[in-house]
Amino acid sequence: MSETFLAEIREQPEALRRLVESRGEVEAFGKALAERGVQEVRLVGHGSSDAAASYGVYAFGLLPGWTAFRDSISLSTYYRAELDLSRSLVIALSQSGRTPDVVAYSRHARDRGALTVAVTNEPGSELAETAEWTLPLHAGEERAVAASKTLLNTFALLGLLAGVAAGRGGEVADGVQACAALIEDALPGLEEAVPRIASTFAYVGRMYVIGRGIEFGTAREVALKLTETCRIAAEPVTSTDLAHGPIAALDAMFPVWTIASRDECLPALVAAAELARKAGATLVATGSAADEVPDASFRLPVPEAPLPVLSPLLSLVPGQLFAAALSRAKGLNADQPSGLTKVTLAQ
Amino acid sequence: MSETFLAEIREQPEALRRLVESRGEVEAFGKALAERGVQEVRLVGHGSSDAAASYGVYAFGLLPGWTAFRDSISLSTYYRAELDLSRSLVIALSQSGRTPDVVAYSRHARDRGALTVAVTNEPGSELAETAEWTLPLHAGEERAVAASKTLLNTFALLGLLAGVAAGRGGEVADGVQACAALIEDALPGLEEAVPRIASTFAYVGRMYVIGRGIEFGTAREVALKLTETCRIAAEPVTSTDLAHGPIAALDAMFPVWTIASRDECLPALVAAAELARKAGATLVATGSAADEVPDASFRLPVPEAPLPVLSPLLSLVPGQLFAAALSRAKGLNADQPSGLTKVTLAQ
Repeated sequence: MSETFLAEIREQPEALRRLVESRGEVEAFGKALAERGVQEVRLVGHGSSDAAASYGVYAFGLLPGWTAFRDSISLSTYYRAELDLSRSLVIALSQSGRTPDVVAYSRHARDRGALTVAVTNEPGSELAETAEWTLPLHAGEERAVAASKTLLNTFALLGLLAGVAAGRGGEVADGVQACAALIEDALPGLEEAVPRIASTFAYVGRMYVIGRGIEFGTAREVALKLTETCRIAAEPVTSTDLAHGPIAALDAMFPVWTIASRDECLPALVAAAELARKAGATLVATGSAADEVPDASFRLPVPEAPLPVLSPLLSLVPGQLFAAALSRAKGLNADQPSGLTKVTLAQ
Repeated sequence: MSETFLAEIREQPEALRRLVESRGEVEAFGKALAERGVQEVRLVGHGSSDAAASYGVYAFGLLPGWTAFRDSISLSTYYRAELDLSRSLVIALSQSGRTPDVVAYSRHARDRGALTVAVTNEPGSELAETAEWTLPLHAGEERAVAASKTLLNTFALLGLLAGVAAGRGGEVADGVQACAALIEDALPGLEEAVPRIASTFAYVGRMYVIGRGIEFGTAREVALKLTETCRIAAEPVTSTDLAHGPIAALDAMFPVWTIASRDECLPALVAAAELARKAGATLVATGSAADEVPDASFRLPVPEAPLPVLSPLLSLVPGQLFAAALSRAKGLNADQPSGLTKVTLAQ
């Protein structure tokens, strides 16, 4: 069980390298982007792709200093709101390229004058046909229902694109390349450490996953993986939001997965971890600054990324491996979670 | 237990009327807004205020047709990203006016040329001093830690402001006034129906709250209330996101609260409810279209709002009452949830 999911997690360094090799596609799009005078970036997607969109907000904010946000799909596609999209770059994220309302949104945005780009693993898909440009993920075929390498490549592609927009495409591409090697080196140790931790959590039914800033997308993706592969009610919260409500629900039976990267948000993350410990929660600390999380019961540190904006490429990995191992410990099948299909056609 | 929270829920019609009476403040601000040539609206807040921000995205999108989004606070206040805020309206939401990073964000945005407005129940607060303009909530003193009337007035104020921006201020003000009367009329029936439903859920530890479009902010607020007052891991998901992962975690022990309003998103909501039922979940259907949710075990319909954009003012109420009743059924104190204080000063 979960063999395919685990195999695809292991394929990620190779998938990242394939993406870097085809970075010319991103650079060509970067030229079109520069000519269009884009003022804002609208990111849309569901599930894992929406977690990647959260990352995109930070990648564009930190690299070119552009305003990016996860746009409401329903406002345009259901309500037909009269928004001015003419100065927008629309990044439509769908690994399968078939998510119906992402396709509908992309078509609508293009009709209204937005520069649209499909980010997908299926360059022949409906989404790719709908958008003006397509940037393929080059992740290779992904067979497990739970996304891993397509997701990591979506994060990396958004980082590359933000880097190109900032005139730092080469630097970011080198960074992604270096991350591939760091992941490759870290995988054996993490694979050894994770199952022992996961067995402790076999009966857990709810968790919080906390991250902030650049790692909030990571928190969203890890929570989603735990939900879909382990049937855990896992909610992603920012470190600050934890204090604004969720802290009240915590106790010793409610573990908290923390993603601590060495950056400007670390003090807020550490403060939130302290609050969670005070409420009795068991902490698992991950990220490059896992050692800074006080009083964690388990630690799964990862190497520091060559560029801080690429940290999520590394900090996602322990969460993926943990989901695979915990799914196994619970007797579930991460390759084929109940109620899910590889391509979600729900409206 | 929960007496103050319940009393303040009942005070909401009166609080809404006070807000409508002082609508001149919103109109005066509307003039300043028209002169500044704002191109986008950035909403920031934590907890309940962030749920209201989700509502604001739709109120501004549907009424004046403006692009509004929940901005990242950390990007500006922690990372100091070089974003252009000069054409932005910043709406800083904090009932206490003391949320540290909302104050910091507001100060930063004003320094960078944004038009800043504090929406707060405390016009003498630090946030009000920091922002160029202040729009008081006029909710009256709120003593329960779990927000009710300040939250409802925040939704209403955002609706009013969006209405003024669209040149429809009078119409929206009349609509809010009418909602106050509708809530007043609906409260006795809801208060009678809710405790019987809540007693069925006394042992529930996790729930999903689904809503879409204009009701996604409602879903976020109801989930937050259930988390903080009932210690439930309650996650808000859009109807479509349910199919992209969370559906895998559902079973008969995992109830789903659905918010169904009679609008363009209803078919997507109904489709999600059908999926959840197929997975074995118990459904509670609320909203003006509660009767359209197939196979719901419990229904708490509310009257239709005079304007569709004001639906949340009504559909929030069953969620508040349910949180109060379930908190009581669980032997908890909604007036003072463990680990929370009325003013959250966490970073």
